Amino acid sequence: MAAPIITLTTDFGLRDPFVGIMKGVILGICPGARLVDLTHEVAPYDVREAAFALESAAGFFPAGTVHLAVVDPGVGSARRAIGLLTGGRYFVGPDNGLFTFAIAGEAWTAVSLGTEAFRLPTVSQTFHGRDIFAPAAAHLATGIPLERLGPPLADPVRLSWPTCRRDGDEVIGEVVGSDRFGNLLTTVTAEDLETLAPAMELRVFLAGQGLGPPASSYSQGEEGVLTAIIGSSGRLEIFVRNGSARALVGAERGTPVRVRRRL
Amino acid sequence: MAAPIITLTTDFGLRDPFVGIMKGVILGICPGARLVDLTHEVAPYDVREAAFALESAAGFFPAGTVHLAVVDPGVGSARRAIGLLTGGRYFVGPDNGLFTFAIAGEAWTAVSLGTEAFRLPTVSQTFHGRDIFAPAAAHLATGIPLERLGPPLADPVRLSWPTCRRDGDEVIGEVVGSDRFGNLLTTVTAEDLETLAPAMELRVFLAGQGLGPPASSYSQGEEGVLTAIIGSSGRLEIFVRNGSARALVGAERGTPVRVRRRL
Amino acid sequence: MAAPIITLTTDFGLRDPFVGIMKGVILGICPGARLVDLTHEVAPYDVREAAFALESAAGFFPAGTVHLAVVDPGVGSARRAIGLLTGGRYFVGPDNGLFTFAIAGEAWTAVSLGTEAFRLPTVSQTFHGRDIFAPAAAHLATGIPLERLGPPLADPVRLSWPTCRRDGDEVIGEVVGSDRFGNLLTTVTAEDLETLAPAMELRVFLAGQGLGPPASSYSQGEEGVLTAIIGSSGRLEIFVRNGSARALVGAERGTPVRVRRRL
Repeated sequence: MAAPIITLTTDFGLRDPFVGIMKGVILGICPGARLVDLTHEVAPYDVREAAFALESAAGFFPAGTVHLAVVDPGVGSARRAIGLLTGGRYFVGPDNGLFTFAIAGEAWTAVSLGTEAFRLPTVSQTFHGRDIFAPAAAHLATGIPLERLGPPLADPVRLSWPTCRRDGDEVIGEVVGSDRFGNLLTTVTAEDLETLAPAMELRVFLAGQGLGPPASSYSQGEEGVLTAIIGSSGRLEIFVRNGSARALVGAERGTPVRVRRRL
Repeated sequence: MAAPIITLTTDFGLRDPFVGIMKGVILGICPGARLVDLTHEVAPYDVREAAFALESAAGFFPAGTVHLAVVDPGVGSARRAIGLLTGGRYFVGPDNGLFTFAIAGEAWTAVSLGTEAFRLPTVSQTFHGRDIFAPAAAHLATGIPLERLGPPLADPVRLSWPTCRRDGDEVIGEVVGSDRFGNLLTTVTAEDLETLAPAMELRVFLAGQGLGPPASSYSQGEEGVLTAIIGSSGRLEIFVRNGSARALVGAERGTPVRVRRRL
Repeated sequence: MAAPIITLTTDFGLRDPFVGIMKGVILGICPGARLVDLTHEVAPYDVREAAFALESAAGFFPAGTVHLAVVDPGVGSARRAIGLLTGGRYFVGPDNGLFTFAIAGEAWTAVSLGTEAFRLPTVSQTFHGRDIFAPAAAHLATGIPLERLGPPLADPVRLSWPTCRRDGDEVIGEVVGSDRFGNLLTTVTAEDLETLAPAMELRVFLAGQGLGPPASSYSQGEEGVLTAIIGSSGRLEIFVRNGSARALVGAERGTPVRVRRRL
């Protein structure tokens, strides 16, 4: 049997040893676990950014993977701790909406992580990643059934999730973030656009500014010019060839994106 | 038997391939080693910062783990190379005080890494992490006894280590660093405070500024206000809710922290 | 048999989950692969910087290692995808010169990655690291012969590679980059210098500025003074003790370095 995979997503950064400490705890419980970092550079306390990162990555891991995510502004408060199973994948972290995307569709089961035997003996006030979440993920990776980690949790916290809608002859979405290259990611999917018109007949508007139809590769863009493309997640992105769309246009999360057929 | 774990702590950063090179050397010698990064973002040459990071993390790894640390301003000089065994854990690195905390208490044995068979064939003047320390850690992970790596080393270099003391009705410690969130870490332990008064009756002074009694979770702090808490290492920390205590107060390593019973 | 090693070198950074996604794809295909990051902080689109990093690291990994590198300004354009075998090591990435150093000397064989069975079912326009290169590396790691990944590629793209030449009684090279500590790396090798004079009789000129003979350790340098040394790759480096030569002198890639016998 393949070694179980545990991914880690946090806002801990890589300067402090917090991520390493969680890995020590995991390997003490599940010595065979394969550990994969998704990102530890989530902006501090930005649950939504972590959720987007996890959504884009989770599906590329094999069934049985445990996705551990700790962006936890409410650590030590009354917020619950959640363990979740859906589509053959586990998710473990604070119950603050991190896994909203994972419970939007297919069937899921969740527990409120509470069983003391599956925590560290002492639970601190400030580092549940180490004391509760890492042990829970590791125990799941060893094959402990989810149900043993705590009582059922029927109403996980859900974030309002940015979507895309059809409004007459327009598709209206929004920017949800940007990547290292300054490419802007949006909620508009390739399927949304197919309902409008062939790609070459589309016109994209970002914060009111008109762009040409989606390019079919970055190399089709012009330097200094905002260009649309269907990115690797199947969603519309805005880029600047050899530059940064984020820097050029100053768009932020929530900036509206509209697409319609060219007149 | 579980695969041996080797942790890595350096000031090499992640931009250059130095850490990857050490891992290549390790896996060439001990193909089954599990490699865990503690941090590579130690401030250049800051032996003390690396020692604090390692101290906070080492205990969370299983017995048998090899902790490899390379913050090495004296590379190529006469400083010795040390291999150390204490409490079932190995420590490998330059003999410059990195492992002071590990030899403060229980029994330990140490060698001066010198056996040529356990180094790379050519040793450079500038990268002993690759040529001496990574091979030593890897050989230990394969089960080579420590004694075979070199002659006994009886007097490892020790840093003066910041502590905490009782002075009349005060506990006096100091700031030892800060984390990504700007939380200030101190030398004052929960046990130190218990000798003074119940938590609710304590008053914390940071660089002369008075704070309230320690909170029991970050969510109890007020935004913009310095607040004390017992952190995940069992020591007093100073935080600002959803903010940075480091930025607010400008405290640095060595800033005094005093705690006394409220009048 | 030892688990196969796959190294990863990209300009993706660690903030976005792109590297983690590639690892998920790899582990889905080759669950036993050992994954080692060389660097993900290559300057965006800087193929040459990635090539230097890979050149300095590749030789320290055992035979059979697969080196996956994705710095890919031409993704989605007509640039080819390459799989390469030389000296018992595999290289996988865009055919844009990343592996110039690996085909400079000994025999090599290369293919143009094209076999659909060894890609993800859907190939995006913008993330071939995930869709083409990670799967190819993983399939090689499982033991699939290189020839099965695509038709022969006889003319890989080669970068002009900075070298070092003898000009009368001078050795003339150049700066190729710098590391985290601000040390400047050059193309001048220890062997080049041996043809000139004993080390103590050499004089190094950086951008016209005269330095003393190469030191034999960093600790021999003086603070604030540019000093030469034979670095860990066997090449001349310029450092400032406890400081940054890059910051002091402002040298960049391409800055000339000359060495001659002292008069």
